[in-house]
Amino acid sequence: MIPRYARPEMTAIFSPEEKLRLWLEIELSAAEAMAELGQVPADAVGALRAATTERMAEIIDPAAVEQIEAVTRHDVIAFLTHLENLCGADTRFLHLGLTSSDLLDTTLAVQLSRAADLLIAGLDRLLAALKARALEHRATPTIGRSHAIHAEPTSFGVKLAGHFAEFARCRARLVAGRAEIATCAISGAVGSFANVDPAVEARVAAKLGLAVEPVSTQVIPRDRHAAFTASLAITASAIERLAVEIRHLQRSEVREAEEFFHKGQKGSSAMPHKRNPVLSENLTGLARIVRGAVIPALENVALWHERDISHSAVERTLLPDACIVLDFALHRAAGMVEKLVVYPERMQRNLDASLGLWNAQRILLALIDTGMPRQKAYELVQRNAMRAWEAEQPFLAQLQADPDVTARIEPAALEELFDLGYHLKHVDTILDRVFGTA
Amino acid sequence: MIPRYARPEMTAIFSPEEKLRLWLEIELSAAEAMAELGQVPADAVGALRAATTERMAEIIDPAAVEQIEAVTRHDVIAFLTHLENLCGADTRFLHLGLTSSDLLDTTLAVQLSRAADLLIAGLDRLLAALKARALEHRATPTIGRSHAIHAEPTSFGVKLAGHFAEFARCRARLVAGRAEIATCAISGAVGSFANVDPAVEARVAAKLGLAVEPVSTQVIPRDRHAAFTASLAITASAIERLAVEIRHLQRSEVREAEEFFHKGQKGSSAMPHKRNPVLSENLTGLARIVRGAVIPALENVALWHERDISHSAVERTLLPDACIVLDFALHRAAGMVEKLVVYPERMQRNLDASLGLWNAQRILLALIDTGMPRQKAYELVQRNAMRAWEAEQPFLAQLQADPDVTARIEPAALEELFDLGYHLKHVDTILDRVFGTA
Amino acid sequence: MIPRYARPEMTAIFSPEEKLRLWLEIELSAAEAMAELGQVPADAVGALRAATTERMAEIIDPAAVEQIEAVTRHDVIAFLTHLENLCGADTRFLHLGLTSSDLLDTTLAVQLSRAADLLIAGLDRLLAALKARALEHRATPTIGRSHAIHAEPTSFGVKLAGHFAEFARCRARLVAGRAEIATCAISGAVGSFANVDPAVEARVAAKLGLAVEPVSTQVIPRDRHAAFTASLAITASAIERLAVEIRHLQRSEVREAEEFFHKGQKGSSAMPHKRNPVLSENLTGLARIVRGAVIPALENVALWHERDISHSAVERTLLPDACIVLDFALHRAAGMVEKLVVYPERMQRNLDASLGLWNAQRILLALIDTGMPRQKAYELVQRNAMRAWEAEQPFLAQLQADPDVTARIEPAALEELFDLGYHLKHVDTILDRVFGTA
Amino acid sequence: MIPRYARPEMTAIFSPEEKLRLWLEIELSAAEAMAELGQVPADAVGALRAATTERMAEIIDPAAVEQIEAVTRHDVIAFLTHLENLCGADTRFLHLGLTSSDLLDTTLAVQLSRAADLLIAGLDRLLAALKARALEHRATPTIGRSHAIHAEPTSFGVKLAGHFAEFARCRARLVAGRAEIATCAISGAVGSFANVDPAVEARVAAKLGLAVEPVSTQVIPRDRHAAFTASLAITASAIERLAVEIRHLQRSEVREAEEFFHKGQKGSSAMPHKRNPVLSENLTGLARIVRGAVIPALENVALWHERDISHSAVERTLLPDACIVLDFALHRAAGMVEKLVVYPERMQRNLDASLGLWNAQRILLALIDTGMPRQKAYELVQRNAMRAWEAEQPFLAQLQADPDVTARIEPAALEELFDLGYHLKHVDTILDRVFGTA
Repeated sequence: MIPRYARPEMTAIFSPEEKLRLWLEIELSAAEAMAELGQVPADAVGALRAATTERMAEIIDPAAVEQIEAVTRHDVIAFLTHLENLCGADTRFLHLGLTSSDLLDTTLAVQLSRAADLLIAGLDRLLAALKARALEHRATPTIGRSHAIHAEPTSFGVKLAGHFAEFARCRARLVAGRAEIATCAISGAVGSFANVDPAVEARVAAKLGLAVEPVSTQVIPRDRHAAFTASLAITASAIERLAVEIRHLQRSEVREAEEFFHKGQKGSSAMPHKRNPVLSENLTGLARIVRGAVIPALENVALWHERDISHSAVERTLLPDACIVLDFALHRAAGMVEKLVVYPERMQRNLDASLGLWNAQRILLALIDTGMPRQKAYELVQRNAMRAWEAEQPFLAQLQADPDVTARIEPAALEELFDLGYHLKHVDTILDRVFGTA
Repeated sequence: MIPRYARPEMTAIFSPEEKLRLWLEIELSAAEAMAELGQVPADAVGALRAATTERMAEIIDPAAVEQIEAVTRHDVIAFLTHLENLCGADTRFLHLGLTSSDLLDTTLAVQLSRAADLLIAGLDRLLAALKARALEHRATPTIGRSHAIHAEPTSFGVKLAGHFAEFARCRARLVAGRAEIATCAISGAVGSFANVDPAVEARVAAKLGLAVEPVSTQVIPRDRHAAFTASLAITASAIERLAVEIRHLQRSEVREAEEFFHKGQKGSSAMPHKRNPVLSENLTGLARIVRGAVIPALENVALWHERDISHSAVERTLLPDACIVLDFALHRAAGMVEKLVVYPERMQRNLDASLGLWNAQRILLALIDTGMPRQKAYELVQRNAMRAWEAEQPFLAQLQADPDVTARIEPAALEELFDLGYHLKHVDTILDRVFGTA
Repeated sequence: MIPRYARPEMTAIFSPEEKLRLWLEIELSAAEAMAELGQVPADAVGALRAATTERMAEIIDPAAVEQIEAVTRHDVIAFLTHLENLCGADTRFLHLGLTSSDLLDTTLAVQLSRAADLLIAGLDRLLAALKARALEHRATPTIGRSHAIHAEPTSFGVKLAGHFAEFARCRARLVAGRAEIATCAISGAVGSFANVDPAVEARVAAKLGLAVEPVSTQVIPRDRHAAFTASLAITASAIERLAVEIRHLQRSEVREAEEFFHKGQKGSSAMPHKRNPVLSENLTGLARIVRGAVIPALENVALWHERDISHSAVERTLLPDACIVLDFALHRAAGMVEKLVVYPERMQRNLDASLGLWNAQRILLALIDTGMPRQKAYELVQRNAMRAWEAEQPFLAQLQADPDVTARIEPAALEELFDLGYHLKHVDTILDRVFGTA
Repeated sequence: MIPRYARPEMTAIFSPEEKLRLWLEIELSAAEAMAELGQVPADAVGALRAATTERMAEIIDPAAVEQIEAVTRHDVIAFLTHLENLCGADTRFLHLGLTSSDLLDTTLAVQLSRAADLLIAGLDRLLAALKARALEHRATPTIGRSHAIHAEPTSFGVKLAGHFAEFARCRARLVAGRAEIATCAISGAVGSFANVDPAVEARVAAKLGLAVEPVSTQVIPRDRHAAFTASLAITASAIERLAVEIRHLQRSEVREAEEFFHKGQKGSSAMPHKRNPVLSENLTGLARIVRGAVIPALENVALWHERDISHSAVERTLLPDACIVLDFALHRAAGMVEKLVVYPERMQRNLDASLGLWNAQRILLALIDTGMPRQKAYELVQRNAMRAWEAEQPFLAQLQADPDVTARIEPAALEELFDLGYHLKHVDTILDRVFGTA
């Protein structure tokens, strides 16, 4: 992934160096477990731990391992050869009864667990930002829109609370996704434990904070990684919904909110007057990238027999990239929300621009309440609404001038029905549901 | 969805008739809740319940509603008009303060909940079949394969247990997915409860066995449906993995298992000798169909503002189709497993065909155990393995003839290392993990 | 596919009856070719043609064929049995040396060719509508927007011309896609022509208006169908771009264009005042459906060996559905454009609302022309633009009051630079490029 | 993209340095065109060309540009500022009337054109390899398989010819895809040519070997890039089909072909005897990566109004990555085919293993030829085929022992029908179709 869309904390997890460090740790942990079980000499394993600690800098050398891989065409064997070259005879107690996938898959489990932790932290930042801004704007009235057409009023806080609730669900999915991929397999070439005791697996798992994979083939089953990737993609799509909202609010004709515009920032090489919602547009694009990893991850599930290696290329590229891009996107989204410039007065102006039509349903219900059948009342209200819209005059005046309406509701009573507070009376109920006692 | 890939139980859930029945039930439930809360006259609502029960057959008439929709171009209004036409003045107590989406989304929640229940039942049938066949074949030896190349032995029961464990995870995901979409929203045009009391929503939700949606826009948020769809797609991919396994096992050169071939069945219009794994091939294709619904479901998340209606077309087609196809696939897969013809003698023959090479790792470890460094031992074993393979002669004999080997391990000791039981000694451990005390 | 999104012309192509009709025609054509080549008795084949013509109604009976298929579990054999039952001994001259896929794939080729013809006709209707409206509005000024922020003026005709050009490219792709799938294979069980002469294939191909498939496996290779499906998906995405444009133009705050609102139409069950862009929203959703067929079509390419049957389920469902939905979408889009209500006065009003900021680049260039370095000129213009925007006062006045500007450009000269005609001077050039001499 | 799956030739095209070089070249070309048209002073532009040539090393410094971008948050403005800093006052004649997208999109057009050229060269290498091996094995008999079950014989050359034909189609699609994206836009902020003459665009296009984009918005329309990406994905899927074929042929039980195994290569860290088809498995995985770019590319089409910037993130990552990975995959596939180890004797052995059942259709046709109705003949052949299969005895002997068969065809005549040459008689016809006079 290009650095443009990456935070170093996340990139580090998937670095070649970190991979070698984890390979070494798992090999040593397995050997230590075997020593504890009396299967290999404890002193040799102890010496190996000491030797590798001492020569760590030489061991964690991806270029050196790659050079050997150019001959073996097998990465794990290259690493073991490298270790043997550096640390000598005792290395024969490493990898006993293991298969490469024990190493690779358990390493991936640790990496993805850590990635999930970073993603959850990113979500928490975004959730905190949304909550703070939602509470700040709990009473800021704004027009709700369906089909991008003015519907009825709501508060800007309720809008943000809706996004908060969605990201809270994403968090729960990510926690579940993390549990899916946090398993350890040290079970040998076809998962039969022919040459390695199940007790070794249990000890390594415990040491790494992973669960034991109940039944492996040669590999940890890939439905787990597909489920994890799906949880990333849904989160990315939730970010897209938030981003699309901001893009709409910032458009020239709406201008109810605006991304923070930095000193020195330039919007366009041609047009100096532009202030563009580039963060949220970028988030929309990043969502497409993360979403693009879902199908490959699903295609990875149906490996042949006890495994083939077709999944590997996807997991070396799209899976880390999806983590890296989502991590970046979460922080970009959080920053965008934290610094979002909100224009309550524009919200009010836009509300006013729809001529009070957002009271149409209330009038409809009031007419029904007088005993009028729903469809007849509907036509009456629609007729007046359309006329108000076309003539660009206030809906209330239109209604007050229609004898079919005033025959049932007095002009003064009509005016009382045009009340913004009526629409916001349950805002606290909603925020309470979302945030607890807010 | 074409009937070819559909079971009537699932199709019925998404029928136009069932949709109208659910619309009616939700409208009546909302009115009854309002009556209980003293917001509308209880006797009128009671009369309406009676009237609709009586005229149910006329009400549930999709063609009649469609005729009205041709004018209104709005399906819910068409239905309400239809009801008003049939049941008269009291229908004005229906839909008070509701918006169409309250009806549509809560209906979809009920439909998808029921669909999930059918899918879980289908999974349970498949799980039962896999468990039975796994226990039946717990001790049936078969060669494990990585890269489709013979690796080391395992048991056919362990293979099936791996699929069982994967489908058990799919079941958990489906249960979680069901919870995601089982929410009720009766919150009005922009989710503000302006014209309908939150208490109505709570009562309708309880009646329908749904949770309350904490914060709606005009609609129930679509991240829920995306998560549900993802759980379908992962299950479909797990079916694909099982199907691909059977397709491999049935191929002419392997023939370790075969789909049940019915009396009268014909494999090919040209070649009367063919017995093809058509069920598992079909399951592979069905997996592609279900998987194809994931991206559209994810694209549905980012609706504009309080909603647009772009999601609707996908939810009228791909979402029901994904449920219907997956339901069919689960039962097809279950039937395939239940009746699968297994050939243990062919499994043994294939095991034998690899000349005992599946003992290579054990020999490697035995050589290391004599103090030989791993990479040197590896080369020694690889050399003998390649020669055995090329000369098509037994690996044991090859090793016994190599003085570099016999200098460290006596020929007789080598023979003892060629023991199938060694590879299967942990089968019970694995099955215990998967099935509990098996 | 549900009738809601289908036109009968397209649905008919994929009906079970049409499939049987095509099967029969291909079988008869092959037999006639063999008769011409002297390989089977011409009179028997002639009699068979007569007999099948006479009993056509009985032959084209999907339910009867399905009943036989319930035993044979093979659709083509069921059909041949059905024919034999109805037309007797001469039917033994049918299907000689053919394999089922010869029938199925050539049938699909005919169906998809016809579907492509309908799609091209749909595109032509849409192209005609776009051209007419583009020429109608060639001189209608409107603000161009990047990032949904006002940029510089263009004409509404140019906007529509851009969509026209895009759909013209889609047409070319569809023509190419049609050529991809319009091939005939009558080559036997593995494409070897073991039991059928290549000359038969050539004659059947010519009769059906298809090209000969140069080399088949058992099937026509599926990269062809993937390419065809991709051409559908790109067209659907082009429709989405048009639809998104209309949705933006209709939003309450923009209102520059509106979908035609029918007499009697209702926008919302709750809000009688609503006029929603439901056609274009629906088109957005339909695009997702068509796009969803691409990955399954691509996954269908890698069939095993000379073929497996995994592709079939996708081609019975998603492929026809993609054709049907796209066909419907093209006509819906065409109708939407034909009847689109355009509001030039609103366009002018929106143009005016950006305070003349769309002249910013011209001012920038004028300042550079006085010898000012670009970045310095940029800052000078940006400063004035931001102030105009924040103070909501005309950009021209702002510039005229800035001595740093007027030191280089006189206030009167500044005013001359504010000229809408300047921005539209190349409209005819562009329309000429797109439509030829316009 | 990680270097593991990249060739430097392709990576270089998308390097930050190359991007800056292209930006500079386009800016200078535009200025030179303006000079030729008399719109800017020719000597200043000539001086600028000289100055930039001289200071090229300093100009092409992505880190320096990024540092400025940290303030401007706009990459093109940062580059122009950087140029101004280095080359002084004359730089004010650059970017006159251009918008950033003129630069970015035309640059992308050049990059993708070059990438397409590399991809076509890679395809040509693969095509050459396939043709050579197809001609080499034109007469090598092998069993054709449908459903992975033995069907009828074909030649290995015909199999490879099928892949050749598929890749030849991919080549044509890629050539078409290249034409799609090879357009130049120098049309200003909304494509109106307000501040730049169309003649400038025409000259820059000619210089860069691009076509003129007939009508741009702010950007070159993205249906072009989607079509290009689709052509990549189809090619990737064709590679997958080839890869899956090799994986099948190399499996232990089939072993008809094998990837070249290098000296020193190791198949498994645990099992020294393994020789795995790792290239073709990797190609399968790489296909998933390329395919994963299609949906994001399609989602990029529907940009808002005259453009938004959501497409950018996808085009900075997935689009180059798809080119890079496909390029790598083409060469990996070519190398695999070039060095593929083919085992004709194993092919013969597998042919023999199916007991002559591949003559079943010929027997069927011979029985029909005696006047027996097809379905009756089918049952007779199927009965004998099934018995032969179950008893594992030759099909010919089985038939010769069946009086229902011999009543119509003499045992000696039966034997004559078992002739391998019969199946291969049209091999030359097929190869001629694919390769021309072969």
